[in-house]
Amino acid sequence: MKIEINRHSDIPIAQQIQENIADRIRSNLLEEGSKLPSVRKLAEQTGVSLMTANKAYNHLEKQGLIEKVQGKGTFVRKSSGASKTENEKKLLSYDWQLTVTDYLPRAQYMQFNTGKEKIQFSSSKIWPNLLPNRYLIKETIQILSEEPYILSTYGEGRGDITLRKEMSAYLKHLKIAIEPDDIVITNGVQQGIDIVARSFVGPGDVVVTETPTYSAAIDVFRGRGASIVSIPVDENGMRVDLLPSLKNKPKVIYTIPSFQNPTGTLLSKKRRQLLLDFAQSNEIIIIEDDSWSEIYFDSKPPLPIKSLDEYGHVIYLKGLSKTLSPGCRIGVMATSGTNLNRIIAAKTITDLGTPLLNQKAVLSFLRSNRMKEHIKKLRIALKLRRDRVIDLLTVYAPKEVTWIVPKGGVNIWISLPPWVDTNEMLFEAKKFGISFLPGSACYPKEPAMNHLRLCFAAVDDQLLETGIKTLCKIFTTFIEERNEESNMPLV
Amino acid sequence: MKIEINRHSDIPIAQQIQENIADRIRSNLLEEGSKLPSVRKLAEQTGVSLMTANKAYNHLEKQGLIEKVQGKGTFVRKSSGASKTENEKKLLSYDWQLTVTDYLPRAQYMQFNTGKEKIQFSSSKIWPNLLPNRYLIKETIQILSEEPYILSTYGEGRGDITLRKEMSAYLKHLKIAIEPDDIVITNGVQQGIDIVARSFVGPGDVVVTETPTYSAAIDVFRGRGASIVSIPVDENGMRVDLLPSLKNKPKVIYTIPSFQNPTGTLLSKKRRQLLLDFAQSNEIIIIEDDSWSEIYFDSKPPLPIKSLDEYGHVIYLKGLSKTLSPGCRIGVMATSGTNLNRIIAAKTITDLGTPLLNQKAVLSFLRSNRMKEHIKKLRIALKLRRDRVIDLLTVYAPKEVTWIVPKGGVNIWISLPPWVDTNEMLFEAKKFGISFLPGSACYPKEPAMNHLRLCFAAVDDQLLETGIKTLCKIFTTFIEERNEESNMPLV
Repeated sequence: MKIEINRHSDIPIAQQIQENIADRIRSNLLEEGSKLPSVRKLAEQTGVSLMTANKAYNHLEKQGLIEKVQGKGTFVRKSSGASKTENEKKLLSYDWQLTVTDYLPRAQYMQFNTGKEKIQFSSSKIWPNLLPNRYLIKETIQILSEEPYILSTYGEGRGDITLRKEMSAYLKHLKIAIEPDDIVITNGVQQGIDIVARSFVGPGDVVVTETPTYSAAIDVFRGRGASIVSIPVDENGMRVDLLPSLKNKPKVIYTIPSFQNPTGTLLSKKRRQLLLDFAQSNEIIIIEDDSWSEIYFDSKPPLPIKSLDEYGHVIYLKGLSKTLSPGCRIGVMATSGTNLNRIIAAKTITDLGTPLLNQKAVLSFLRSNRMKEHIKKLRIALKLRRDRVIDLLTVYAPKEVTWIVPKGGVNIWISLPPWVDTNEMLFEAKKFGISFLPGSACYPKEPAMNHLRLCFAAVDDQLLETGIKTLCKIFTTFIEERNEESNMPLV
Repeated sequence: MKIEINRHSDIPIAQQIQENIADRIRSNLLEEGSKLPSVRKLAEQTGVSLMTANKAYNHLEKQGLIEKVQGKGTFVRKSSGASKTENEKKLLSYDWQLTVTDYLPRAQYMQFNTGKEKIQFSSSKIWPNLLPNRYLIKETIQILSEEPYILSTYGEGRGDITLRKEMSAYLKHLKIAIEPDDIVITNGVQQGIDIVARSFVGPGDVVVTETPTYSAAIDVFRGRGASIVSIPVDENGMRVDLLPSLKNKPKVIYTIPSFQNPTGTLLSKKRRQLLLDFAQSNEIIIIEDDSWSEIYFDSKPPLPIKSLDEYGHVIYLKGLSKTLSPGCRIGVMATSGTNLNRIIAAKTITDLGTPLLNQKAVLSFLRSNRMKEHIKKLRIALKLRRDRVIDLLTVYAPKEVTWIVPKGGVNIWISLPPWVDTNEMLFEAKKFGISFLPGSACYPKEPAMNHLRLCFAAVDDQLLETGIKTLCKIFTTFIEERNEESNMPLV
């Protein structure tokens, strides 16, 4: 275990240690039954006092995440009685690995995107039937027939020039004027976030994110040892007004301005300008994650922050995985100046470049009018779905449940009463073949446990209604359980 | 600029700073004409004395890498007089970015693999005509026709189970017994190296590599802030006997046991066992980069170290980019125990997974007998090429030039007299449309300048002879230049 302590942080050190271990346990990086280091060893490894180490463990025990076994040591608590002796025995010979420190404090994304459930409300993706499968397949076959060496050659590390040109043209629709040479092709937006992080974020560097935010972005920044400062979101997006009063200067601000993940909110035009102004006067890099801006249901969202950027403060990320082809894994990063050279270097070191075939597969779709037409249809289809889900929730959800009606994107952020733990609820939902993302995964700091993110776009049309109705029943059960508890006589 | 100082290192701090900046300049991360921080600022940023910072700059100036301009500051020296005013003016508005520290001390791979030259001796890859283009294209078209949703769905983060099963079966040929569940699919071996590094290597951690070694691996470990300890290579591979006397305990050992890159040497069977023993008794992770073991020219190399591994010390990397399909970008990582969970987490965070189509494209080739047949043919074809190139060198290279005859793989390591700088030579070679890898890119520490790596497998058959003959003429010119210089009268 590698526990990055930030001694300049407001957060007490014991709490930093406790959060780090809790994250690992919740992410399954520390498996049930794993032995933890002794208090003495923990204190030694992290360079803190015995008292501090002990405090962290006590808090974890209270949270029910670990247990102390007299004479044996401290272990990650096992849920239920499930015996795993076979596997445990096998793991014994790998025991030495437990002492190997790593740089992965959490991996929540992995945990919640297994994709095994029949009714998937968990990952933000679109039902394959709503994507232009046939056309893309036809195009890919065409390319394979025309370019006999496409599987036998490496592409350029920064991405193929044909796609960079097409992307440069496509981004003009969003009023982003960027040259093909200022574009880097990535394996989806996720790799884009990761590449900026590995280039510019290191131990103790301050990264500002919205809270709640995209869970796999938290995983990345945590993995770089960043000190994450989280700024709450209201109906107009990130509370940009709070930025000037931050104690430590941020190096990077990560934002999802349009149809924020997970809340679905929209950063207002005024706040976009304020955010950029703040970055400019403080020499901060903004990572603008723009996965969804084309998928609006009412009016167009304000233009991307990148469209206002004059001095290369914004590294703009856009993916085609969400709206066009999850399978191609194609995203772009756009920026200028020396930062561009640095992200090209980082991309090259990462994997020598994105596969050429996948880059060319999307070319003709982007080039023709089809992309525009497709997005238009997608807007209509997804708006219908959103309306349907909101209607169902309005009818079937118990009155204690609230939600934000998203104006675009694919997610609804649902809040339950404070006594409901959506992690426990997920356990129950899975029995009915339903998955969702527990809100706790979306908090860079102390998680709120009573929210969940529901993606309404991925489920098979036939299963949408059943899924929501069943989920509403589960809501009711969980809300009433507490009501019953509180109705119990006190003695 | 982020300069990671290791105060426990044998290398003087001024030298660490100088090497870091030299690396950046050689990698073009610091472009010609860029302004460097003042001595005072450099001392402040790195936490060293003014004297130390000054010493670093003085040494860089002597190396001809930087220049001090009276009253203006210190700049990266411009080669030739080429005026770039247009571009320079444009860059002015991005000037603030120069103060942004990053975590990329070098990116040599990117610099030397631009692929623009007609006769490419630079990157280790195979001439596309020697790869099974047609079959793979046919198979990929088949898959696209059969799986209409393949471009519209995400795969599993750790890789598709069908490919993991096939890989598990394939590795049995190399006597590696590993379950499909202990395999992770990556975008080529490069991403494998990167994922292990991001999981287990952090600032100050000791990483052992061979010297010289694969340049992009150095780029990765440097990027993680590792302290690299380099062990020389002799005719039996890494000098494993030197490991026990290391002052600081390594955390990770990176090795290319079969047909080492760049020297082409083979780690003997005995040393493989010794290396594993050392790792076992010191709880060290071995990264075994096995890109080439199937491509032997005389006898089979010893079995991979992974085949001896009982307790999960070896993370085994194998790619299909070199021998089958560079375009698919498919590699595997194989390991067991908790380290497996950690690399699955890291892979997922990196890019959510390798594209499904690319994983399936290689399936049927692996499954049939074709892979075996193909590798057999490749061995013959590449052996012929190696022999041809060695013959040409024997006839045309001046007597001062020596080389190691590789017993497998695709590279020849060529040494010139100590007064020849192969970086300068590359500049000349490019005028003739020829590229190679200057040996300096392959040294984790102070580089030797008089070697080069020549890949004999990538060039068009027709151009091979011309290329070698021309290169030999360039060798002669560079060797004689010095001879002439030394023949000049002293006064």
